[in-house]
Amino acid sequence: MPKRLVSWVGSANDPETPFPLNNLPCGVFSRGTEAPRCCVAIGDMVLDLAMLEDLGMLDGLPTVFHQPSWNAFMAEGPDVWARFRRIVTGLLLDGAPVEAQVSPALVPMAGLRLHLPLVVAEYTDFFASEDHARNAGKALRGADDLAPNWVHVPVGYNGRASTVVVSGTDIRRPWGQILPAGAEAPVFAASGRMDFELELGAVVGVANRHGTPVDLAQADQMIFGYVLLNDWSARDIQAWEARPLGPFQAKGFATTIGPWIVMREALAEARCAAPDRHAPLLPYLADRAPTHFDIELLADLITPDGGVTQITRTNYRRMYFSLAQQLCHHAINGCAMRVGDLLGSGTVSGPEPENRGCLLELTWNGATPLPLVDGTLRTFLEDGDTINLSGHAQFDDYRIGFGTCSGTITPALTLSQRD
Amino acid sequence: MPKRLVSWVGSANDPETPFPLNNLPCGVFSRGTEAPRCCVAIGDMVLDLAMLEDLGMLDGLPTVFHQPSWNAFMAEGPDVWARFRRIVTGLLLDGAPVEAQVSPALVPMAGLRLHLPLVVAEYTDFFASEDHARNAGKALRGADDLAPNWVHVPVGYNGRASTVVVSGTDIRRPWGQILPAGAEAPVFAASGRMDFELELGAVVGVANRHGTPVDLAQADQMIFGYVLLNDWSARDIQAWEARPLGPFQAKGFATTIGPWIVMREALAEARCAAPDRHAPLLPYLADRAPTHFDIELLADLITPDGGVTQITRTNYRRMYFSLAQQLCHHAINGCAMRVGDLLGSGTVSGPEPENRGCLLELTWNGATPLPLVDGTLRTFLEDGDTINLSGHAQFDDYRIGFGTCSGTITPALTLSQRD
Repeated sequence: MPKRLVSWVGSANDPETPFPLNNLPCGVFSRGTEAPRCCVAIGDMVLDLAMLEDLGMLDGLPTVFHQPSWNAFMAEGPDVWARFRRIVTGLLLDGAPVEAQVSPALVPMAGLRLHLPLVVAEYTDFFASEDHARNAGKALRGADDLAPNWVHVPVGYNGRASTVVVSGTDIRRPWGQILPAGAEAPVFAASGRMDFELELGAVVGVANRHGTPVDLAQADQMIFGYVLLNDWSARDIQAWEARPLGPFQAKGFATTIGPWIVMREALAEARCAAPDRHAPLLPYLADRAPTHFDIELLADLITPDGGVTQITRTNYRRMYFSLAQQLCHHAINGCAMRVGDLLGSGTVSGPEPENRGCLLELTWNGATPLPLVDGTLRTFLEDGDTINLSGHAQFDDYRIGFGTCSGTITPALTLSQRD
Repeated sequence: MPKRLVSWVGSANDPETPFPLNNLPCGVFSRGTEAPRCCVAIGDMVLDLAMLEDLGMLDGLPTVFHQPSWNAFMAEGPDVWARFRRIVTGLLLDGAPVEAQVSPALVPMAGLRLHLPLVVAEYTDFFASEDHARNAGKALRGADDLAPNWVHVPVGYNGRASTVVVSGTDIRRPWGQILPAGAEAPVFAASGRMDFELELGAVVGVANRHGTPVDLAQADQMIFGYVLLNDWSARDIQAWEARPLGPFQAKGFATTIGPWIVMREALAEARCAAPDRHAPLLPYLADRAPTHFDIELLADLITPDGGVTQITRTNYRRMYFSLAQQLCHHAINGCAMRVGDLLGSGTVSGPEPENRGCLLELTWNGATPLPLVDGTLRTFLEDGDTINLSGHAQFDDYRIGFGTCSGTITPALTLSQRD
């Protein structure tokens, strides 16, 4: 049975903290005008790894923690990842004789700035929740028209890496081509159907050579860790542009990830069986060992007046394909995967209305507005609305959490601002 | 009228050379174990810019030519690009008093190795030839089913940057999921329908800020230059995977670009009017000044016995949207474009059968095999087949050429090689 590790950092022992000693998620932080550098979260503090490195407390590890991203560390590979966890766990464990030396490297999380924890090499998004796929078909076209390939192929598309931003970054409402209802020609307008998509992301930490596929077990081990991911979507732009080559500008304006990469090893106890499949998987995708995780995922919508409505509660375990399966499929044609690649699971939904992971499903494409705690209704996101994603794997007396992945919609540029 | 510049490098004055003094395309070369470095092509030679830099012949330019890519130079911006052309043209012009100093930096092109001329930041591919779009619909589905958005939207999709390779790199036949004719479930197999796509690519040399669109004139000026591009496609994988999110693994195994980036300024005299449009373009896409180019594009298929069949002869001027329009559309939602981004025009086809830019069209999806000069037939590419793309803008007594973009199909890995 998973066992909680007790730390001399008191707040890490709170059963409700997302960041117990068992977690140690990877972030990048700064205060004021300081240079961003690597840290891990522990309770309500972050541990400044650059300072520990300077103090000589990280002997046996590469000197990469002054970097403003985890890419250099990730590139060191799984043995170094495991050694890192052993060393840092040893420093923070209750009774460790180094408390006095390590304490100066603890910084209260409140008030510091968290940056994008990785340089995103490339970004790929998938489409693997059966409930999401069926609901989207029904809400958009009135048809439960799951494509015949869906139960066999981890369906995905390449996304845009340059617009992946960290939690807390404002999301500007994009302009684009939109076909008004009943019209034959599109207009150029700001999106009126802004949506979020609640996803889990995987960060690739091991590259494969171009031309050399990997098997599922290898793919699983290539994943450095997992993040919360919000695949912002402009549904009106998407509806008009997506035939026949799929989503493009409706997604490429922004994708938000959480500030914390939860290392794969920290989620080892959360592994769980995959859902029943409707058809046998091809052998390269067959999951003989579990690659799914039991991770509870939540979305809150916060209106400009501060009212918080929990609008989604779902679980990553329901996904038809895991991120490891998606990564294996991504490389099966010999595609070169790189350190820093980001894969999105696809919207995580579930069988009940409260499990729906985006407003397209929650409001049935705007047909049934969602009541919020402040008495207002939402079809799609309005300017000033904030979406907060959170998630954790729950054990008896602790949880492995991801923190918060947050973004606020800001008004579209006016035409004169665009000039 | 465009005027040929005469150089003291004799081979640059041949009316048939792709590389007269007017061109000066940007490449990266090495010999033996030397470090790759920047060069331009001139006649049948390359000019070693790193050596010229060391000799102090490039005063007034940034010291970036020892780099193994043009990214650092591109990032200097259009004023530096123009100054570079003035300086290098001055060094090579007939009668220039520096011939003796510059001559040691000339290296015969024969026998040297050409590398990828840029680090590709992200890669996006488009779908902008009306003949290609209509032919593909007719060949695949028996229907001239151009989507209603096509005449309004530069339809595109994000591709995979990690598998963009330079001309001369072998292209391994990929494995993937394929639905056999009449079957209900897919098999896992090596692609049996390997195709090429003849395209022109644009290299972005100026970034825009995330959230800040650009207008068409700005987009045009953000383009550093143009390359030949072969968007290799596995048609059987594509047919099964592409619904509903578009092409993914059928394209992501490899994309070949030519070794030479022809700078935008070198193509100034090749600008030409756009084709007639079927509907007015939205104002942000309206091309008040020409952004199309009159560039003849050719594809040869070379069989393992060396037989060369010219299978396509077409022209970039026929594209419905130019690469500048595609770039403008790419950024219109605020997407951050980066130095080193690569955009593919989409397959360049034309109204006549000999203008078709891929085998899907040329063989009508395999229904009408193509006769080759060696007496064999082709539906799709066989192992050992080579595709050579070439292209140029033709003027009275010179041409601005792109060189050759070549790739040879090698056999798929066997299952045991994959382990």
